[in-house]
Amino acid sequence: MTKKPFRVGMIGYGFMGRAHTNAYKQVGQFFPSDFQVILKAACARDAAKAQVFADQWGYESIETDWRKLIARPDIDAVDICVPNNLHAEMAIVAAAAGKMILCEKPLAMNAAEGRTMVAAVEAAKVANMVWYNYRRIPAVSLAKKLIDEGRLGKVFHYRAKFLQDWTINAELPQGGQGLWRLDAAAAGAGVSGDLLAHCIDTALWFNGSLSSVCAMTEVFVKERQHALTGKMEQITIDDACTFFGKFANGSLANFESTRYARGHKAQYTLEINGENMSIAWDLHDLHRLQIFDYKDESKIRGWKSIHVTDNSPDHPYMANWWVPGLAIGYDSSFTHQVADFLQGLSTGKPASPTFRDALETQLVLDAVLESAKTHQWKDVAKA
Amino acid sequence: MTKKPFRVGMIGYGFMGRAHTNAYKQVGQFFPSDFQVILKAACARDAAKAQVFADQWGYESIETDWRKLIARPDIDAVDICVPNNLHAEMAIVAAAAGKMILCEKPLAMNAAEGRTMVAAVEAAKVANMVWYNYRRIPAVSLAKKLIDEGRLGKVFHYRAKFLQDWTINAELPQGGQGLWRLDAAAAGAGVSGDLLAHCIDTALWFNGSLSSVCAMTEVFVKERQHALTGKMEQITIDDACTFFGKFANGSLANFESTRYARGHKAQYTLEINGENMSIAWDLHDLHRLQIFDYKDESKIRGWKSIHVTDNSPDHPYMANWWVPGLAIGYDSSFTHQVADFLQGLSTGKPASPTFRDALETQLVLDAVLESAKTHQWKDVAKA
Amino acid sequence: MTKKPFRVGMIGYGFMGRAHTNAYKQVGQFFPSDFQVILKAACARDAAKAQVFADQWGYESIETDWRKLIARPDIDAVDICVPNNLHAEMAIVAAAAGKMILCEKPLAMNAAEGRTMVAAVEAAKVANMVWYNYRRIPAVSLAKKLIDEGRLGKVFHYRAKFLQDWTINAELPQGGQGLWRLDAAAAGAGVSGDLLAHCIDTALWFNGSLSSVCAMTEVFVKERQHALTGKMEQITIDDACTFFGKFANGSLANFESTRYARGHKAQYTLEINGENMSIAWDLHDLHRLQIFDYKDESKIRGWKSIHVTDNSPDHPYMANWWVPGLAIGYDSSFTHQVADFLQGLSTGKPASPTFRDALETQLVLDAVLESAKTHQWKDVAKA
Amino acid sequence: MTKKPFRVGMIGYGFMGRAHTNAYKQVGQFFPSDFQVILKAACARDAAKAQVFADQWGYESIETDWRKLIARPDIDAVDICVPNNLHAEMAIVAAAAGKMILCEKPLAMNAAEGRTMVAAVEAAKVANMVWYNYRRIPAVSLAKKLIDEGRLGKVFHYRAKFLQDWTINAELPQGGQGLWRLDAAAAGAGVSGDLLAHCIDTALWFNGSLSSVCAMTEVFVKERQHALTGKMEQITIDDACTFFGKFANGSLANFESTRYARGHKAQYTLEINGENMSIAWDLHDLHRLQIFDYKDESKIRGWKSIHVTDNSPDHPYMANWWVPGLAIGYDSSFTHQVADFLQGLSTGKPASPTFRDALETQLVLDAVLESAKTHQWKDVAKA
Repeated sequence: MTKKPFRVGMIGYGFMGRAHTNAYKQVGQFFPSDFQVILKAACARDAAKAQVFADQWGYESIETDWRKLIARPDIDAVDICVPNNLHAEMAIVAAAAGKMILCEKPLAMNAAEGRTMVAAVEAAKVANMVWYNYRRIPAVSLAKKLIDEGRLGKVFHYRAKFLQDWTINAELPQGGQGLWRLDAAAAGAGVSGDLLAHCIDTALWFNGSLSSVCAMTEVFVKERQHALTGKMEQITIDDACTFFGKFANGSLANFESTRYARGHKAQYTLEINGENMSIAWDLHDLHRLQIFDYKDESKIRGWKSIHVTDNSPDHPYMANWWVPGLAIGYDSSFTHQVADFLQGLSTGKPASPTFRDALETQLVLDAVLESAKTHQWKDVAKA
Repeated sequence: MTKKPFRVGMIGYGFMGRAHTNAYKQVGQFFPSDFQVILKAACARDAAKAQVFADQWGYESIETDWRKLIARPDIDAVDICVPNNLHAEMAIVAAAAGKMILCEKPLAMNAAEGRTMVAAVEAAKVANMVWYNYRRIPAVSLAKKLIDEGRLGKVFHYRAKFLQDWTINAELPQGGQGLWRLDAAAAGAGVSGDLLAHCIDTALWFNGSLSSVCAMTEVFVKERQHALTGKMEQITIDDACTFFGKFANGSLANFESTRYARGHKAQYTLEINGENMSIAWDLHDLHRLQIFDYKDESKIRGWKSIHVTDNSPDHPYMANWWVPGLAIGYDSSFTHQVADFLQGLSTGKPASPTFRDALETQLVLDAVLESAKTHQWKDVAKA
Repeated sequence: MTKKPFRVGMIGYGFMGRAHTNAYKQVGQFFPSDFQVILKAACARDAAKAQVFADQWGYESIETDWRKLIARPDIDAVDICVPNNLHAEMAIVAAAAGKMILCEKPLAMNAAEGRTMVAAVEAAKVANMVWYNYRRIPAVSLAKKLIDEGRLGKVFHYRAKFLQDWTINAELPQGGQGLWRLDAAAAGAGVSGDLLAHCIDTALWFNGSLSSVCAMTEVFVKERQHALTGKMEQITIDDACTFFGKFANGSLANFESTRYARGHKAQYTLEINGENMSIAWDLHDLHRLQIFDYKDESKIRGWKSIHVTDNSPDHPYMANWWVPGLAIGYDSSFTHQVADFLQGLSTGKPASPTFRDALETQLVLDAVLESAKTHQWKDVAKA
Repeated sequence: MTKKPFRVGMIGYGFMGRAHTNAYKQVGQFFPSDFQVILKAACARDAAKAQVFADQWGYESIETDWRKLIARPDIDAVDICVPNNLHAEMAIVAAAAGKMILCEKPLAMNAAEGRTMVAAVEAAKVANMVWYNYRRIPAVSLAKKLIDEGRLGKVFHYRAKFLQDWTINAELPQGGQGLWRLDAAAAGAGVSGDLLAHCIDTALWFNGSLSSVCAMTEVFVKERQHALTGKMEQITIDDACTFFGKFANGSLANFESTRYARGHKAQYTLEINGENMSIAWDLHDLHRLQIFDYKDESKIRGWKSIHVTDNSPDHPYMANWWVPGLAIGYDSSFTHQVADFLQGLSTGKPASPTFRDALETQLVLDAVLESAKTHQWKDVAKA
């Protein structure tokens, strides 16, 4: 059977540009579909950098103007892998051009911007998705399955944290390649948009809407030298952001994120406590899922560590990889996401999270940041 | 050398009455001191119950009226092991009688009551202590040592939680023996006073004062049958209590407690993140301390699990027990506390936490409950 | 009800003397029985040391001649807590005197000696027990329960190891108080009798007889100064001992012990792999039992960590201690053993392991040491 | 700079055919070199199957006769991914044809066969390597670095085990695709060649030569239906294989492998105990290395879990992947091996293990199987 082409135009070439491209290249070998992914063009302002990237990763051509890339008739899908402040404009242009859009998270600088993006893709009726890749870690996907099967009963608590330690050093500059995450103009927010966004996306997927939140933010290092200007500039993004709140289902939320937790590199942990089952997961050991099943016989109840590596349909995605016991890496989550996106094209059931799904995370983030600023509880606006 | 007698009058015979008595009996065998502990009298309203307890544990006599017990000239120290609503009155009478007082935690129903107790013992100049026993788990004591040695540098985060699951069942009654913790009249508060109190005590000891807090509480099961009256009665204690806030040293607090976290029996965990070192501990594996030392050589940095069981002065209290590798239990923390109290009598440096130390926890708890009620940030009052 | 006296005569005052005495003192408070344990006399060659021990632990009197102690009419039970080379003679005299005997492990220097001891206690019809205390760690007792319920199905593998690191330092002397374990004349053997004996005792209890073994031993430090003589003397005990073999039920054995495994203080681990269930345990976290249950639904199969601390009959012995989640220590295993011994006296069903049970371990040890010496497989002799 | 072509001819298309091909495709993106890997041809007896594999993985052409593949002038390197009984013949023909050879492990059916292969590649002076991929798990490579830096001091113990449970079911047939590992004619041996071979390879790399061994093997399921013939046939491979022995450096070996350890999918664990440091690793959590450093200050000594995911030269290979904290999978070990092989071509220092290196593992395996058969200790022959 001849496969339909899926011609990708990639904007950006950083950490995420590489992670997405690796997924586009692997997907066909592990997750056969109706589509043949073709790496058509890579786009960056600097032609030399674009060319190096294209050569290393196998893109057929380059562009230096993202509008030109989007306009090219040989591009089916645009992948937006640039700082957050550029997402909206690019997505709106791409939608207008009728292109499918795969946008890096968070969707936007804020919910207002996000709404315009949702409106654009829905008006244009183009397939769209946001790269909240952790949904596709097999252990996380398995947790979702257990939740959907109703195993938890009434939920009482949901807690998540995302801890890093890479900005403790006050000498670390801000701005520029790799460091734009410290620059409010490019990133919009700090750990809330970068790290909490992941935690919130998973939480909404697992446990439904958040109704109201109460938050605290902190900036530990008040100013840093800007890598591009050389000047000391004030840091206005949040170094740490903690919030609690209530979900629509009556359960309580407790979320924390920081880049000042010594000893944690990317420790995204989550736990959900239901009447009948609790579930926990840790990105640092991403191939394991922890569950406690109250329905187990009382004398052998305990926390079970499921090594989610079975070569069987029991463990999401794993039948397509290796034999049992052999772990796959972080990068595979992107491969799974492309696989699901392509399957969504075939089945007509779009893979989540769509722009509309991701807007909900943006609404929570807006409420969190507003609460932190006003020192008041804040209701989460409806999408 | 002849030892001085330390004649104990115990009020109460429940879980804590047993734990304290076990400590009084063990202390002389493992921690020789200038004192000979003598179990002089046990007091309970029901003479039969008092007698059974006295026989099993070796108290020489019984009383049914706590005022009589306190008044006895052959009692040096009164141990208060009764529901929280009785602490203040008993302590004040005992202080007036010139007795040493060892009071179960939390100190009081609230800070106001606590202040009267502090005033009483300080006016009477009687030795006093509150049973926040977790300070004396060897792993926790070791953590304190590392902190006091200045190994952490600037502290950014302190987080603690105390999770249980024993009240999920809505059929569980409230009130009466063992269940007074669900009864606001006897307990004053719910998980905040019962569980968070422990977390706060350790936090203040490790990281100094809390300046301000913002809290949320929840009651999941709104009414329960009262075990004594048989009637359905409203539950007014907090089933869950979460708060964040700021310490005086600029670090951020995140605390959570609940009795609705399926799979956790008594999971008190704490973590403190400093610039140079992070430390973590979990009551479920109480004999281990986790540390991450940024001063380690970079390629071998990682979280280290210290099995705090060395028969050497390196590991607090352990030289007095068994050989390396052999864990001691939860109960030993009380033995250590008695040992330190007796040593404090000899050295003239009172063992902490005194009533005054414990009042600080009470002040934090008041601010937490007030914040939860008003949905506002709340400053912690000064002692 | 009046309790019958159980008057103990203790021979020895070292690590085990303390551990056993602690158990005698605790047992009545936590495990009521028909008996009142009375610490009648402590015996040591040095009267001053005996008196210090008796004072600290509450023995009513002392003896310096163990034959006198045994002969005393006010002694019901003799506890033998001395180096291995003295067990047989004392036990035989005690049996002849009609005393109950609680003997520290290993039973004897070798199986031949053990046989004479078994003959003596059986001829005298005196209650007898060997202190293989690890059977009474609640997690280990729970494992036995699961095995007896037939949950494992056909067993394929049993592996155990006991790793320590305290003799790595070549400057450590041998002989004398606390160091007699390095002296062949006093200890008989090295890690085999000291550490493997525990592993074998549990294995026989869990998995039945061992049929044949093949072993290797090693002495890493060939000579050490003797603490008493001051002379360098050859070390003839085994520093490390490894063996494999076959159980009568067809499963395979793999055992290892050493005092040269840096980083392990007393790491006794065991694992048994059955067709339907595997079970694992580690003395370093003695309050947890690990199980893998193949009968679990396939997608949520995994290793479960049971925190064996429930205040219920589900977890052996724990209903008599504290509330769920609160761990007891190593020392409690001795308390449980006394409790079971006393219950055995009441019920007429002797608590295991009796001298006869412990003889089996001795037979395995003989075969192991003979195999190591001859470099041949060796059948285990029948009791 | 123009890269030199590295044109691969792949023989086989199973689990390993896929794993190697994935590595050939990834290597250029993550580990730039002087070479451009080109997937020239895939070979399998069944043309249809070869074509499906070639299409999915991007091989330019197919062959059905491996001799033709080897003979093709447009093939630089032959990758042998077929059952063990075919390795020798193919390798010898490929060497004669002057092709580089990358051969799946174990090298051969036995040492004699291995010797002929070593002779062939050395006579032909062709680059050669055996796919003992676990050397290239970053945690394992880091362990090697620590050992080479002399951190362990005198080594006392090396223990490793490789536990699986996939053949417990007696209904599982033998022979044919995926099941040839149970067929002695195709596999040569059972768990010894399949699993122990990995453990031995790492051990020789870490700890030097093994001098002598003593082994036990077992077949738990004596006969199985053959998938191709339909007949019940005797199983002659080893279901389980355990051995102990001595290394040339005086340390003791303890190795175990089985496919009957319920609950373990691919649990390859290793531990090495040195005077000053111990190191442990577990394939089930492949991104972590455990170390115990006796040179740590005594009060904070403990086992440290290093999350080997730093984006720095500290953690082997990781600077080429993602940001700190993000784990890579099992599959990356093959990518690293290709990267090292290509680097070896550039530097002239061949990447290990070469055929000659892998012959040593074969010699140990021969001694192990001979020992198991004769029930005698066996010296390991010299290469």
